[in-house]
Amino acid sequence: MSQSAKIRDVVITPVAFHDMPLLNSVGVHEPYALRSIIEVVTDDAYGLGESYGDSTHLERLQKVAPKLKGLSIHDTNAILNICVQSLVDDTTTGGDGMAGMVTTASVADKVFSPFEVACLDLQGKLAGIPVCDLLGGRVRNNVQYSAYLFYKWGGHPGQPDDEYGEALDPAGVVKQAKKIIDEYGFKAIKLKGGVFPPAQEVEAIKALHSAFPGLPLRLDPNAAWTVETSKWVAKELTGMVEYLEDPAPEIEGMAAVAKEASMPLATNMAVVAFAHLPPSILQGAVQVILSDHHFWGGLRRSQTLAAICATWGIRLSMHSNSHLGISLAAMTHLASATQNLDYACDTHWPWKPRDEDVIVDGALKWVDGGVDVPTAPGLGIELDREGLARLHRQYLDCGLRKRDDTTYMRKFQPDFSPKIPKW
Amino acid sequence: MSQSAKIRDVVITPVAFHDMPLLNSVGVHEPYALRSIIEVVTDDAYGLGESYGDSTHLERLQKVAPKLKGLSIHDTNAILNICVQSLVDDTTTGGDGMAGMVTTASVADKVFSPFEVACLDLQGKLAGIPVCDLLGGRVRNNVQYSAYLFYKWGGHPGQPDDEYGEALDPAGVVKQAKKIIDEYGFKAIKLKGGVFPPAQEVEAIKALHSAFPGLPLRLDPNAAWTVETSKWVAKELTGMVEYLEDPAPEIEGMAAVAKEASMPLATNMAVVAFAHLPPSILQGAVQVILSDHHFWGGLRRSQTLAAICATWGIRLSMHSNSHLGISLAAMTHLASATQNLDYACDTHWPWKPRDEDVIVDGALKWVDGGVDVPTAPGLGIELDREGLARLHRQYLDCGLRKRDDTTYMRKFQPDFSPKIPKW
Repeated sequence: MSQSAKIRDVVITPVAFHDMPLLNSVGVHEPYALRSIIEVVTDDAYGLGESYGDSTHLERLQKVAPKLKGLSIHDTNAILNICVQSLVDDTTTGGDGMAGMVTTASVADKVFSPFEVACLDLQGKLAGIPVCDLLGGRVRNNVQYSAYLFYKWGGHPGQPDDEYGEALDPAGVVKQAKKIIDEYGFKAIKLKGGVFPPAQEVEAIKALHSAFPGLPLRLDPNAAWTVETSKWVAKELTGMVEYLEDPAPEIEGMAAVAKEASMPLATNMAVVAFAHLPPSILQGAVQVILSDHHFWGGLRRSQTLAAICATWGIRLSMHSNSHLGISLAAMTHLASATQNLDYACDTHWPWKPRDEDVIVDGALKWVDGGVDVPTAPGLGIELDREGLARLHRQYLDCGLRKRDDTTYMRKFQPDFSPKIPKW
Repeated sequence: MSQSAKIRDVVITPVAFHDMPLLNSVGVHEPYALRSIIEVVTDDAYGLGESYGDSTHLERLQKVAPKLKGLSIHDTNAILNICVQSLVDDTTTGGDGMAGMVTTASVADKVFSPFEVACLDLQGKLAGIPVCDLLGGRVRNNVQYSAYLFYKWGGHPGQPDDEYGEALDPAGVVKQAKKIIDEYGFKAIKLKGGVFPPAQEVEAIKALHSAFPGLPLRLDPNAAWTVETSKWVAKELTGMVEYLEDPAPEIEGMAAVAKEASMPLATNMAVVAFAHLPPSILQGAVQVILSDHHFWGGLRRSQTLAAICATWGIRLSMHSNSHLGISLAAMTHLASATQNLDYACDTHWPWKPRDEDVIVDGALKWVDGGVDVPTAPGLGIELDREGLARLHRQYLDCGLRKRDDTTYMRKFQPDFSPKIPKW
């Protein structure tokens, strides 16, 4: 087996899939979301990873890829070291595919992540066990996700409305929640805020609270508020949200809000790398960390984050941005093997066209607001080469090479500012 | 494969091997050291673990063992949960096999550890890869160990001198170091102190420094000193030791010494469980943690400890107490896959009779002061059933059921007190 466990080739394919005009504090989602699809190939099998599709990130991945040939699929320590080394002279910035909402801290972890996931997929395939078994075994058979609501336009300007239509006020948000919950059965709701003045977003949460009594709610303005505004929102939403996500910017801002907020504060902006943990813990800045294997360095390093959270009494949830099936499979395996995952995970899944993906349909089953953990070896998914070719062609044709919600927004609202805090 | 990966049986065998009269702050090693040998058995293979042999610990292991039948060897999350549950009503104390020198914190991690190691051994065997590959791959092919020196009597009272003979002063310590380094080629030296007044132990270190110029030295009095005495020793040994290990008791004591000591302080007494990390880090109590998979919850949780150390800028070394070949194999695999292992690991190996072990000879090769990382599947070792039977018979015959250095010492020195700090 040791022979067939050598990496023969690494193939990176950028893809684009249609996205809807979802609003956030830095702008609006463009008509396409970009991803990179990573195949790590051995003599007998392939493993899959998925990551950001921005050109800066793609270049970093492509710089690493040829250096992995000949390594064992088990030698993830060596792969991480190669990622670190490849970035020593890297002076480019950005490329995180999150529209500037996440710092560039720990770029090596972002570059390493899809290679690690692909190697774990291969390790599982070769051992005949699902990836969750490589991670200590599933503690749940179904991983719950949240209904991830967005303020949105009816459709992209100049195009007909999409199937979700407009949501620009509390009533629209409730309507969107009903549609999405009807289809998926989600049992927790997250609203992406930071779009309208805080009072309106507070009203939207109150409307959701009335429409879905008992369902855990979350509001995430992506640090669009000052500390004072955040404290006011926290007071308004006391008893109504399970956590408040990134109300104010930076560890210091979160720490100041945390001193007065009655609910836990969550983050995927202030604490996004291991180096952020010591100062954040020292300041008691956050009570919930939204992990994300795409920027925390893959599945095993996300498990380390989970263990750190358990040790310091920090709760754990999971972040998402626009993604395809490979990421959903990886997120599901990781979540299934993480004992102290205290909340339903985020996913952008409902916003992706049903017929656009790079994996063969049917492997990931939505049941009762969650995904059943695949039991087949590895991630339990297979590459749909036709789908991959189609989404790659879409990438070539769409012309987008990096995510830029702000520039797109300014096409329609020239004076739009992404500056935070906004209110 | 999934069928053959089910646990069919778990066999726990207590064993005893001859030990030498090694002195420490709580007494002297008895004529036998006790260990438990754990076999986790599937339809096709077995995995090995090794842990403490004290009766309290044995009972805890035996309580867990039958509950593991039918589980997958990959389901270590479930195994840990069973260990935690099995201890809910446990009111026994001790059983750590370390003569009271380690707290009873995190008993579940101690009980879990040998089962986890045995499962990893099996996982490696089934996948055809060494355990270090399950841990991310080796970053070094030879794991360095230190020459672990002890003050000692020539032999157990009433018996002839053992091959090392007496070491009760600086000259004896240097002589011992020469013998042990001649045989193994160690490139770092640790002296177990806490036996004689600090001034004499300082002299011993100075004698070693003269005899082995350039070799990194360590002194470990097992918290036998007050904070003030520790500060004095630290001043005396400035520039002469790579770290000072557990000079004073408790996190608070270490923190007080650390404020003035010029060298890093290391511990395997103040910080021995995940729960100790937050207060220790808050107080800046230690700069080096001696990990030990036997009490940190197995190999993967020891990797988590390593990642925590990397995140908080704490350096990493490795602790040992009297052990057999299974533990040496596990320690070697773990160390080989741990990037931020900054020092040569401790081992009691030279103090064990060459002809007493439970594994087939030859798998663990000492080269240049270290052990070459085995490349065979799993831990790379095999059970020597004859050796196991012999050491089990020795356990039955020797009458010892727990480690008790103090009572043994008092047979010869009735007024001996294990109370620390002593000076």
